[in-house]
Order: sequence, then C-alpha cells, then structure tokens
Amino acid sequence: MQTRREFLAATAGALAGAGSAFDPRRSTFDVPQIGALPRVDAAALRSRIEALSVHGRPAGGTFASGVSRVAFTDADVAGRNYVMGLMRGAGIEPRIDPAGNIFARRAGGDASLPPILFGSHIDSVPSGGNFDGDLGSLAAISVVEAFDRAGTRTRHPIEIVVWSSEEGVAFGRGLAGSRIVAGDVKVEDMDAVWNGLRRGDVVRKIGGDPGRILDAPRKKGAHHAYLELHIEQGGTLERDRVAVGVVEGIVTIERYTATITGFANHAGTTPMADRQDALIAASQLTIAVNEAVRARPGRQVGTVGQLNVEPNAPNVIPAVVRMTIELRDMADDKLRAIIADIRARAAAIATATKTTIEIADLSRNQGAPASEDVQRAIERAADARGLSKRRQPSFAGHDAQMMAQLSPMGMIFVPSVAGISHSPKELTSWQDCANGADVLLAAVIEADRL
Amino acid sequence: MQTRREFLAATAGALAGAGSAFDPRRSTFDVPQIGALPRVDAAALRSRIEALSVHGRPAGGTFASGVSRVAFTDADVAGRNYVMGLMRGAGIEPRIDPAGNIFARRAGGDASLPPILFGSHIDSVPSGGNFDGDLGSLAAISVVEAFDRAGTRTRHPIEIVVWSSEEGVAFGRGLAGSRIVAGDVKVEDMDAVWNGLRRGDVVRKIGGDPGRILDAPRKKGAHHAYLELHIEQGGTLERDRVAVGVVEGIVTIERYTATITGFANHAGTTPMADRQDALIAASQLTIAVNEAVRARPGRQVGTVGQLNVEPNAPNVIPAVVRMTIELRDMADDKLRAIIADIRARAAAIATATKTTIEIADLSRNQGAPASEDVQRAIERAADARGLSKRRQPSFAGHDAQMMAQLSPMGMIFVPSVAGISHSPKELTSWQDCANGADVLLAAVIEADRL
Repeated sequence: MQTRREFLAATAGALAGAGSAFDPRRSTFDVPQIGALPRVDAAALRSRIEALSVHGRPAGGTFASGVSRVAFTDADVAGRNYVMGLMRGAGIEPRIDPAGNIFARRAGGDASLPPILFGSHIDSVPSGGNFDGDLGSLAAISVVEAFDRAGTRTRHPIEIVVWSSEEGVAFGRGLAGSRIVAGDVKVEDMDAVWNGLRRGDVVRKIGGDPGRILDAPRKKGAHHAYLELHIEQGGTLERDRVAVGVVEGIVTIERYTATITGFANHAGTTPMADRQDALIAASQLTIAVNEAVRARPGRQVGTVGQLNVEPNAPNVIPAVVRMTIELRDMADDKLRAIIADIRARAAAIATATKTTIEIADLSRNQGAPASEDVQRAIERAADARGLSKRRQPSFAGHDAQMMAQLSPMGMIFVPSVAGISHSPKELTSWQDCANGADVLLAAVIEADRL
Repeated sequence: MQTRREFLAATAGALAGAGSAFDPRRSTFDVPQIGALPRVDAAALRSRIEALSVHGRPAGGTFASGVSRVAFTDADVAGRNYVMGLMRGAGIEPRIDPAGNIFARRAGGDASLPPILFGSHIDSVPSGGNFDGDLGSLAAISVVEAFDRAGTRTRHPIEIVVWSSEEGVAFGRGLAGSRIVAGDVKVEDMDAVWNGLRRGDVVRKIGGDPGRILDAPRKKGAHHAYLELHIEQGGTLERDRVAVGVVEGIVTIERYTATITGFANHAGTTPMADRQDALIAASQLTIAVNEAVRARPGRQVGTVGQLNVEPNAPNVIPAVVRMTIELRDMADDKLRAIIADIRARAAAIATATKTTIEIADLSRNQGAPASEDVQRAIERAADARGLSKRRQPSFAGHDAQMMAQLSPMGMIFVPSVAGISHSPKELTSWQDCANGADVLLAAVIEADRL
C-alpha cells in the first residue's frame, strides 16, 4: 500500500517534467463544501441504464432478459453510439483513441494539471447483465452533468472513459482497451485472428485506428487519479448491509493445471485394491484445494472449475484427469503458501492412490493495490453521503487494474443482489446505483483535493 | 447355486420331450481314464494364436502390437475364414447360423443326446489383445483334434462355437451372437443403424442370414452343458499363483447416473462459504462410492468412470456434474445394500454442499451363476492335470452369461499377466494357454459323465 507521502511524491515527481504548478497541500479550488455537494440525477441515470440495455437485448426480451453486448459486435457499436450521444448532450465531445476507447474531457481550473480519469466499460459477456460496466460508464456522465448544474469547477481537468473490450470475450483480455492504454501492445497484435476476425479490423469497426495503435498508450503520471464505480459482482455487501465497498485493490489471479496419471483398466476385473484410479486421486485433490484455501483466515478463494477425464467411459477405470486450479488473493505470500500446501497434499494423495500428480503453472495475472489516499478519499465521500462503507479486495479483474500502472487508483463497489453477475439475473437496486454515482461524484471532489 | 440333484433333474426334464435315452447315472462311454487323458498340441495352439493375430494387426506391427479385429470389419471376416479353415482341417464342417455365429459338430456316441457346447469369440475391441476370446476359440479346435488323435469318443455330441460380436463395439451387446441364440432378438432389430451400418447388412457380411434371424435362437435344454475357456482379464490368479480359475458365475452389472446440481457463479467474487460447487459435491460422491464398495467384505467392485462438468471453465464455479456409477457383484442383495449406502451418503453430501444429487438407474445386466455340477467338473479336470485351482466370480461379461439361460454353464479362467486386458499388452503365458486347453479337454470329458 502507498502512503500519503509516497502518493504525493510520486504524483509531484510524475508531473515535474510538465512544469506543473500543482501544490498538493492546496485543498480546495472552486469546490463546494461537503454540505452543498451536488447530487447526480438518479432518475436520468436509471432511464439511461434501461435505454442502454436495449442494445444487445435478446429478441422479444425485456430489461430482465439481460444483454449480449459482446465487444466489437453491432450491439456494441450501437451502445457506444448511444453513450457518445449522451456525452455530447452533456457538452463534452467524445474522442475515440486508436484502441477504440471513448474519452471525453471537461476542463478544470488549471489546464496544466493532469486529469482525474473515471469511467468503466459497456461491453458484456454473452447473456450478461445490465449493470456490469454500464453503471460506472453512465454514472460518469451523470457526474459531469451534476457538476454543470451546480456550477462546480474542479481544479484538475476531469476526463471520462468508456473502455473497449473489458470482458475479453474475443481475443481474451489481451485486447482490452485499458491494457493497451497501460502500454501492453505491439503493432503485430493487430494481425491476430480469432474466430475469423482480425484484431485490426474489429478495432477499426468501433472507430479505433489500428495503424496508430502505438499512440494509444499513455505515460505513467498521465492522470492525477483513476476512479471506477462498479457493481460488487459478489454478495457480501448486500448480505452485510453495507452500502459502499472501498476497494483495497484487485487480487492476483494464479492458474495452475494438475495432471493426474493413473492406469486405465477394466472396471470389472480389476479388484479395488489393485486400482490406480486417476479420478479418485483427482477427487481427493479437488477437496484438498478447497481445504487448503479455507484452512487460512481471510477472503482468499480457490476453485477447480475445469476437469476432464480420460478415457471417460463407465466401464474403464480413469487413466488421466486434467484439471485447473485457480487461486485469488491480494497477498502474494498467502498465494505462495496455499499452492505449497496444495502441492504437499497432492504428493500425499499421489502416494496413497498409486498415481502421479503434476502441478504446472498456467497463468498469472498480477493484482494491483488501490492507492491508500484514493481509498481514504472514497471513504470520506461515503461519509459525506451518510453511507456505510468498508474496505474489501476486488476478486474480479477490472480496467482499474491496468490504470493502477499509470496513476493512483481507487474503485467504488455497490451491492449486487444475491451476488449474481455475468447473468441476466445481475441486479443492483436503483437506490444503490444512485448512491454509487453520488459517492463517485464526491470522490472526484475529494481526489481533486489530493 | 444349482445342486447336483437339481442339475440332473433339469437336464433330464429338458430332454424328456426328445425321447432321450440319457441316463445321468451312467458315468463313462468310451472315455479314457484320468491317467490316460489326451493332451492338446500346445505348439499348434500357440502358432494358431500367433497366426490369427495377423488379421487386424496394425500396419507394420508385430504380435506385441495387439489387434483391432472389431466385429463385422474385413479383419473380422478374414479371422473367421482362418478359423473355419482350421475347423475343416480338424474334420468338422463349420456352419454359420443366421446370427453369424460359427458352429461345428463332432458326433458323440449317442446321437439322441444334446451336445456339449464350448468355444468363445474372436472379435476384439479396437487396439485389443491376442488372447481375449482367441484362446478359447482356438483351444476348442485343439480339443477336437486331441480327441481325434486319441480316438476318444464322447457320449454326447460335442459342438464348438465362435460367437459373433462378443465385444459389442458396434450396436452394443444387443447384437452379440450369443444373446440372439439365447432368444433375445426381434425381426426389426435387423433394421437398426449404427454409424451408417445397418445391422442386417453387417450380419449378412459375416455370412449370417438376417431374413431368418428368428431361426437363430435355441431352446432351453438345447445343450448338455456350455463350457468356455477365457483369460481372467484381472490380475488375481497371477498374483496368487493359481493356475486355474473355476468361475462361480458372471456378476450382475448395475449402472447409475448421478446428476449433481449446484450454482454457477464467479470464481473470484463468490466467497468460499457462499458456494454451491457441484464439483466439490461430485468429488465427495466419487470417494463415497469407493468407500461404500470397500466397506464390505468380498470382491465386489464399483467405479466412477465417466464424469462431465458444466460449464467447465477455470473461472466459473461448476454448476452441474454428471457422472456414472457402476457396481458389479454376484450377489444382488449386496448390490442393493451398496447402492442404498451410496444414496444415503449422497443425501448427506448434498446437504453439506448445498447442492442436489439425483441418482437414476442407467442399465442393469443380470448376472448368471455357473452350474455347481459344471464347476465341480472343472475342478476335477484341474485336479486331473495337477493344476492349482480356485473358485472366483467373473467380473467381466462373457457369452457364457447368455448360454446359462439354455443349459448348465461353466467357465475356465487362466492367468492374465499383470491383469491387463483390452490392450495390446494383454498377455497369457504359452504354458497357461496350454494348461487352459488341457483343462477344457478334461472338463468336456467330466461334463460328458454328468
């Protein structure tokens, strides 16, 4: 975690080259006092979430049918056009960067300062919900409008963003717009083909410019801070009746493959004691992963989500089982301890079942801590709105993870009903949507003071 | 188990209508005394097993490459022609019945008696071995030749058989030639299509007559006894250094499907305590099946061989798992107790994991006890050869299971090296092959006395 001193040093350092007149000790600039905080137009926010949901809605469906607005599809283009229209209505002109991200700026009091960036995404998974990404994207526009209505002028410019292709349905997260802005892109990436689609072509389809893709990355320090409002996608805020989650950071995601090798044999003629049953070993390992994760205090999670048996016939003792092990936590040392525990349990299982178990690295997605200062800014924003709050990690990946590479970052979570996400059943109450947008507005003002 | 008295009554009863002069108390008829038992030509038996292996051998392979002689393929037809040539060479004319089974008869001393039938099959699984079925088929011919050399004339006619399609690779065991002879066939079965092959067409390809398929079934009592020499396909005879297995019967095979329903959710945002993970429940159930089978004394076996996960993605908590449960034992009451135990364990697992588990019947293949008299005949035959023996069930299905519906039945097992079967690595020593054929010969003589 970054201390306030480190934050200030880092920010000032990053801006030194730009000849900035930024004085981090200066606390306000044409900013209203807490008691006079503007509010977003909750009714307009709701009607826009409903209107955006039309783009990608199943034929004959309703709002409750959810949305399939996969990045680069016609529904995605239509949704993006709808959102860009809202930006123009709010008096800020959208601009599509070479990667296909939509940005729009509102001037601040000091044009030499880097902007406070906030927003989210509007692409969805297939058969997804109406709140994942959409809430944070539309709330960003509502904040700009609320500032206009109240005559609020922040010291820093503010910039809102709708990231392209957050869900990574096509091309994986490698084509996520925020990843490209964070600098993770090569010219030849635009030639990759997935399901007959060339990356460069789909980027162009949404208004990007693959020929200028290397102009998309921004430099470290390009933003004063990055903020993102998002639904929790888990059920803990709702269950514990907490209005606002102050995200401590985005967890590291480690994936492993376990290959369990036994011996295929006749399920009739092979006595129980003589078997080398790979599925018995895999079952024990699946339970061991669960136990190793739960044996420690904390909110870490671990999942065996994929498991395949060979030869997979009712009358043959399983010879080989391949399965994935996924672990997520903020603390890398805890992840190291858990996988070491799993490996030790696997060795004992292999001996007991006369099988071999090989655990290999599959992928690692390094997490990103939120800035301590931005977390405090969000906490003050929640306090200003009179809303309960608590800190918690994000166990899902977000564009904010990429933006943490460029500036201090923070995220605001609001409750997901029953914790359901990536489903048409995804739901956040309209009150929680409005609360989240109001906390985002207040957090922008708090961040402007940093 | 059938007592000797029941055997005699049943046999006599079955033959009464044929006006038989059979006197079961008569003990010999032109049969040599034990000390003068003929022996099969072990070298010829070996060279024929090697020669038959050529039909279905992988291109460029050797004997150790095993065989793919799937029923109804060209390799099957070639292997059948080879075996029919051997029969003719032994002076017995092969006859193909409407179902495609190959029969050949040698006259007995009393033409009014039903024959002693013995043999096996020569079709294989894909990438199978050189002994499963082949040994019992070729040994039957060797027995006829040994009788000829020794001038032995049995009282009953003897009939040898090579069953069609024992392995049930195409059309399942429903087209097994022995099943049809046991009476389980309808005219319309010949119209079934599997992988573009019509049943009637493949039966005709091997010389059967689908238009007369209803003439293939034989009546109860059609045989004096049925005998089959086969490799054990398990490793217990070899491990315990027993030369001959006297089969007590063929186990009942029960198959069930278990469907475990949890709830698909995000593998990151769903805390461990809130999960309804179908794979955790399925893993516990897989282990419970193993425990329920092993908790009881005896040689019963139980296997989860097939297991499929939905949606089967590394980052989604498994929603549904479907798996098979297969149980095998001779005793139906033990099978009932085991599945009841599994159901009770499943209910507890479902409660503990917040899932539902439904266990449904998939199939049931009723086992068949061997005749007590025929088992004793085989034991005497092993004693006459000076070979160690023991009784044991067959945990694999065999044609003998069908023939038990028509007459007293018994099987002779010889050791499989390392218990490997349905594999090119399937192996039985040449000495054990010769031992098995000699015991078969002696058992035919013993059965002739019954």
